[in-house]
Order: sequence, then structure tokens, then C-alpha cells
Amino acid sequence: MTAAGTRDLTITEVRLTPILVADPPLLNTQGVHQPYTPRLIVEVVLADGTTGVGETYGDTKYLELARPFAELLVGRQAHDLNGLFTVADEVAVDRSRVVDQVDVGGLRGVQTADKLRLSVVSGFEVACLDAYGKALGLPVHALLGGKVRDAVEYSAYLFYKWADHPEGVKSEKDDWGAAVDPAGVVEQARRFTERYGFTSFKLKGGVFPPEEEIAAVRALAEAFPGHPLRLDPNGAWSVETSLKVADALADVLEYLEDPALGTAAMAEVAARLKGAARGVSDGGGGRRAGVPLATNMCVTTFAEIKEAFTKDAVQVVLCDHHYWGGLRNTRELAAICRAFGVDVSMHSNTHLGISLAAMTHVASTVPGLHHACDSHYPWQSEDVLTERIAFEGGRVRVSDAPGLGVELDRDKLALLHRRWLDDDGTLRERDDAAAMRVADPDWVTPAVPRW
Amino acid sequence: MTAAGTRDLTITEVRLTPILVADPPLLNTQGVHQPYTPRLIVEVVLADGTTGVGETYGDTKYLELARPFAELLVGRQAHDLNGLFTVADEVAVDRSRVVDQVDVGGLRGVQTADKLRLSVVSGFEVACLDAYGKALGLPVHALLGGKVRDAVEYSAYLFYKWADHPEGVKSEKDDWGAAVDPAGVVEQARRFTERYGFTSFKLKGGVFPPEEEIAAVRALAEAFPGHPLRLDPNGAWSVETSLKVADALADVLEYLEDPALGTAAMAEVAARLKGAARGVSDGGGGRRAGVPLATNMCVTTFAEIKEAFTKDAVQVVLCDHHYWGGLRNTRELAAICRAFGVDVSMHSNTHLGISLAAMTHVASTVPGLHHACDSHYPWQSEDVLTERIAFEGGRVRVSDAPGLGVELDRDKLALLHRRWLDDDGTLRERDDAAAMRVADPDWVTPAVPRW
Repeated sequence: MTAAGTRDLTITEVRLTPILVADPPLLNTQGVHQPYTPRLIVEVVLADGTTGVGETYGDTKYLELARPFAELLVGRQAHDLNGLFTVADEVAVDRSRVVDQVDVGGLRGVQTADKLRLSVVSGFEVACLDAYGKALGLPVHALLGGKVRDAVEYSAYLFYKWADHPEGVKSEKDDWGAAVDPAGVVEQARRFTERYGFTSFKLKGGVFPPEEEIAAVRALAEAFPGHPLRLDPNGAWSVETSLKVADALADVLEYLEDPALGTAAMAEVAARLKGAARGVSDGGGGRRAGVPLATNMCVTTFAEIKEAFTKDAVQVVLCDHHYWGGLRNTRELAAICRAFGVDVSMHSNTHLGISLAAMTHVASTVPGLHHACDSHYPWQSEDVLTERIAFEGGRVRVSDAPGLGVELDRDKLALLHRRWLDDDGTLRERDDAAAMRVADPDWVTPAVPRW
Repeated sequence: MTAAGTRDLTITEVRLTPILVADPPLLNTQGVHQPYTPRLIVEVVLADGTTGVGETYGDTKYLELARPFAELLVGRQAHDLNGLFTVADEVAVDRSRVVDQVDVGGLRGVQTADKLRLSVVSGFEVACLDAYGKALGLPVHALLGGKVRDAVEYSAYLFYKWADHPEGVKSEKDDWGAAVDPAGVVEQARRFTERYGFTSFKLKGGVFPPEEEIAAVRALAEAFPGHPLRLDPNGAWSVETSLKVADALADVLEYLEDPALGTAAMAEVAARLKGAARGVSDGGGGRRAGVPLATNMCVTTFAEIKEAFTKDAVQVVLCDHHYWGGLRNTRELAAICRAFGVDVSMHSNTHLGISLAAMTHVASTVPGLHHACDSHYPWQSEDVLTERIAFEGGRVRVSDAPGLGVELDRDKLALLHRRWLDDDGTLRERDDAAAMRVADPDWVTPAVPRW
């Protein structure tokens, strides 16, 4: 009778493939990226043979949740996306042991069982959307109500980095060189613009004392006058330091991301910036607005929204569809932000092309996206797709092909999975502090605020 | 190649059919329902011949927006639902004259151009979802991510009413009789339970002095002990009167709906109820929580949410998918409410089976629906469907047929449209005060607070 009536959207098989992906020695306040980072590739196979792909965090604690989750998906309909949360609840109840051990590392915000579960849901949700879209002949953005733009803008994600991982450590060589001072950061930014056309820049801070990072952002502002700039020290600063940095960079920052840790500290920074801005003329008879604060650390779950929004702690929420439970939840977060006059954009952690495609589809459907999204993708020399996703003029075109519009390269997937199988376990949990201790045996995760 | 690849989801035609539907003499604080009320039936035809249906308000101001909107839809894709809001913006810009005159009557909350546009969008959105679902062979709930329950619970919507419309007025006779006192309200409730199996009850108040309405709710509580009861005076009371009624009915009310008008008054009522509750033991060593406040008047647009939620003015938002811009916006509203710990349920104005089907689909997908939804449907003896939607045990089963799962009866539609065509214009704008003046020439819309 009808199209889907003749297609069987029942999930008949779910494949989970943990992999290790090469990662350059990028620095952050907790340490340095490992030479290889774990990711989990999800494949959902439908009764009609269609396969959909998804991607999420690959640390063991995610795998332990994903395995029983995958079993429960078999026999369900690929379009039953609300039901994924019901399944997640079942897994959590059955596996309280796993959930009790939640500790996903200091850079990903609050640690809760719910967030861990949602990160697993996101991998399955994207795979279901890809499969369902392919089966119906519709792109993922159409399943989310349709794109409102044809391309999504990303920012250059600048990192302080070493030229190489520590000597003696197995790693893949990268061609970016070192960046440990303002000149190095500017040089990195130039290469980003040459290779990908990015026009806005984010510097991962919290690595060097604030004066050095202020100097780096100032150098970027001189090299790229008028371009949007952001600085993100991952909550490494006190309220006073946050205010000093905001003041020093007020004329060049698009926003300051997570200067201080937690909603209370962020709210204090925001209130004092706003108060100070009220007393400062912009030179044109008006008032300079305070530097907006963005977050991917104090608002990373739905439960954290109420306090942060009622306290006006943040002006931009950087959504990570992995944390938030997928692309449909990302749209819900965007709706909440819209109702409260808070901007939304996208956070990124180390990810591959499947997640970049997913981010691009959902971002294309969100109205009022005023800030370029973050992506680590340029740092990933390896991928599991037959064709890398391209940035043109800093943008990724939204695919109109069915599903995500990407194709899995099984040879590449097998290679990266082999690396995971061969690992003795040390790289299967991402631990930036442990990676730093290879170079500096005395390194301990810095207490917060670090400055 | 793929299913939808072989289907053409392009909209080739949009049909708008204004109708007049019989309505009993139901009383509210502004007057009485007219004997016939305007509704607009929307049909969206796709290139493959599939037709989808939607329904919304039919007053002239909606028709004037719907006509240019319909023209702009032709050539667009039925699944491009985010694009409907872009189209709405275009219509508004082109027709500023219409938008400047917005006045949709006192019972539907704040009057804004945006809300008028969203009410029109909702009719088209539902028609597109119906068409798109039929073309793909998927029920509307699946297009919203899938149902999380198989049936949706509704409450008995009790009204003070006359036995008949005023003498000499053309009208359809109903068999419900009069209800102008506690005994009449209880008798009406009994018939609701006998005919439809409803187990919760809402009384439309604001008609008689509060003591009489308190007595009616008390009579219901005695006749149906333990059943959820609600009272809704449409903002007719002062803060003090609201508090008195809440106090008098604290032990039997599930919630009190819009006792006072506007967020400021509602917030004051809520705060004082909460304060009083903190001082009152529940007799079991704990504290009695204050009567929750529900609204369909102070939170009827996304713009009103921030103030109401930060002031804790309401504990339940009653969504009307017509006001809010459709079923997907209803889900977004529910997500916002969930993040702020506010319950959500559904409001109803006079509507037919298409809207009841739409409400049921979306309600089936919303997690944590703790209150039975409102529906006027039992009061509508006429419909435009081949088969009326049935309540069983107070519930409507969620259809798994493609689209909404309803079928338009063209003869019935033609009959009700003929009535609209034959009307001299007086019934084409719903005006409860004007209808009341037929019986009472001195009637003026009461000033608020009325008591």
C-alpha cells in the first residue's frame, strides 16, 4: 500500500566496534591527549538490509553499557527513537554496578549515571536515524524537520600542542608542528584558515598562566582583526582571574568559555561582568555589553539548566549531542535555550566523520545558530569513512543524500579495531593526566582553580 | 533505490475549507458559546496523490493569514516542517495589516501576531504530518519519535450550560440538558462517565459566584470520591478570591487552572499557597503541598515561559497545539517544562476529530504525562470524519495506521461549509459575549477580576 508499509524497519542486528584513533599531543588543563583515543562505532542493521552508523565515546564504561543496550534494540523499530530512552532506563536498572562507577573524566562536566547513559543512547540514536533515513530515502535533517540552512559553519579549534608525543611512545606523526606561545598559536590558526577556510577561532586554554593566554588571543586578534575569537580554559580560573581575563580581552572575545568551574562561580562572573558593563560607556553614547559566557561544563544535562538559567550564569550553551542523548535532544535543548534568550552552539570532543555528519545535520535544523560550531575533526588524520568530510570556507555542506550521507570503510574500521584489540588496556580509557605523566612523571591533575 | 526516493512528497495543492460546527450553549466567564463555531479544515495534497488533513481556528483573521500561507506551501516538501515557520514569517511580513489587528478573544491568553501565525501553522503542520506519514506508511506518532503509551487519557470537560440556545436562534438541539447548579454539574459528570468512561473531571468556572462553584466541586468530590478534579474560572478571580477557593478545595483539587489573570497574579497566588502549605501539617507528620496551579492563559507562547518559570507562577502548563504552532512545538514545550520541573498536559477549545487525533498522537509521545488531557470533543455532535473517534474508559487509543489514522467525510465537510457560506458573517467570528447578548441585551464582558 504505502512505501514504509513495504519496508521492514525492524532492527535485526546491532554491531559494536570499539576502535583506537590517532590523536595529536594537544594540551589542556588536565594534561595532554593520548596518542590514540577510544571511540565506539555503532551499526544498526534493519530487516531490509539497510545499515545505519553511529559514533560515541569508546571508554570501557561506555562499552559496558552499550553491549546490553545493543541486545535490547534487536526486534525494535528503527524509528522508535523515544523508546531508546526507555531502553536506556532498563539497562541502567539491570546494570547498577556499571552506573555506580561513573567517572568520565574532568573535562566533560558533571558526572552522572544519566549522562553516561545518554552518551550511549546518542550513538544508537544517530545509527537509527541513519538507517531509518536510508530506508525511507530521506536525509537525517529531514527526519529532524528539515534544514533551515544549506551549510553549517565551524570554528578553527586551536590547541597548545607539542610537535610530537613523548619519545618512545608509539604514535602517529602529525604535520602541525608545535604551538606553545602566541606565535605558534597564530601560525596554527593560519594553517587552519589555509586548509579549511575557517574564519573564527577558539583557543583551548587553561594550559599556561593567564597572561600568556591573553597574549596569544591578542596575537590572534592582531593577525585576524575583526574575526570572532574564543578562549576556553576548562574552568581552570578563579572568579577574580576570570574577570581579569574578560576585562583584558573584552574588545576581541566573541565569548569566554567556562572560565570558572560550576554554576555558582559562572553566575558570579556573569553578574559582575554585567554590572561592570553597565558602568562602562562604549564610547558611542551607549553601554558595552559584558563578554558573554559560554559553557560546556556547567550545563551538560537537562537537570543543570534550571539553576543556570534562572541565575543567568551563561549566555551560550555549547551542546554536545553525545552528552545530551542525541540529535533530537539537541533540538530540545536548543528550544529551551531559545525560550530563555540563551544562544546555542556546539561543543566537540575528539570525534570522527560520523559525528561530524550528525552534528552538521542537526545544526542545519536549529534556527538562530549565531556562533560557529566547534569540531576537533581537522585534528583527526584517521577516519572510518570512505571519504573524509570536507570543510569549505569553514563550512560543511549539509548532505541531502538518504541518512547521514556517509559510508563506512570496513578496511579502515578493521584496522582501527585491530589497534584496540592489540592494546593492553592502557589506551582504552582516555586519561589526559596519565598521558602527561609519560612526559612528566610528577604530573598530577591540577587543583581547581589553577590560577 | 529507496522508498521515499520513489515517492514525491512535493505539495501540489492546498485546500482550505472554513466551516461552522454546532456548539451547545456552554457558559464561561465571558458569555456563552455561539450555536455554531467557526473552524478551518486544511487539506494538503502531495504529488503522489496522498492527502493530509489539519484543523485550526476558523475566524476570519485566521483565514486571512491561511490563504497566502497556503499559496506559499505549494511546491514545498511535506516533510519540511521547520520551513513552515519561515513561511509564516513571510506571510506576516507581507500582511502587516492583518497582524496589526490581532484580537482573538479573551479566553485564549495573550494576543500577539506571532501566536496568530502559529495557530495557522499548526493546521498546516498537522496536515503535512498526516500526508507525509501516509506517504511513508508511518503513523504521525512515529514521525514524532514514537509513542511511549498506547492510549491517551482525557478528562470530562464539565460546563455550566443552558438546556437550549436562546429562543428564536437557529441552533442544533443537544441532549445534555441544563447544568446551572451543583446537582446539574454532578448529573452531567455522571453522563460523561457513562458515555465515555472518564475518571477525572474539569469544571469550567468563572460563571457563578465562587461559593456556588466551590459547592459544585464539593458535590463532585462527594459523588466521585478520590477522582481528580479541576476548576478553571479563566482568570476571573482576584488573588484573594483565588486563595480562598484554593483553601476551600485544597483536599480535592488536582489543580486549580488560571484562577487569576496574568503571570504576576498567578505567581502571587502560587507563592502564598506554597507559604501557607509550609505551615500546615498534612496530619501524617509531613506537610501538605499547596494546590498546584495550571495555566492555559499566562503561558501560551514561548515568550511567556521565562518569566512564569523563573517566578514559579505555574506548576502545570496546558498546551494547546494550535496556539503553540503544532505537534513538534508541543514536544518542545514539554521538554522545556520537563527541564524546569513543570508538569504538562493539554488544553482544549472547541475542536473536531482531526485535532483530537493530532492531540492523541503527540500526547502519546510525551514522557511523564501525569494529568488527563482536556477535550471539548464530546460536546461536538458534528464532525468531518467518516467515523467519530471513540473514548474507551476515558481514553483514546493511539492509531498505528499511517498518518493521523482518520478519514475525511466529504459530504459532511460540504454540509458544514455550506453553513459557513450561508452565514451572513455574524457567526464567522466566535464571540461569546455577543452570543450572551442575544439572551441578555445588557451583557458586557465582565471586568477582571470579576470576583
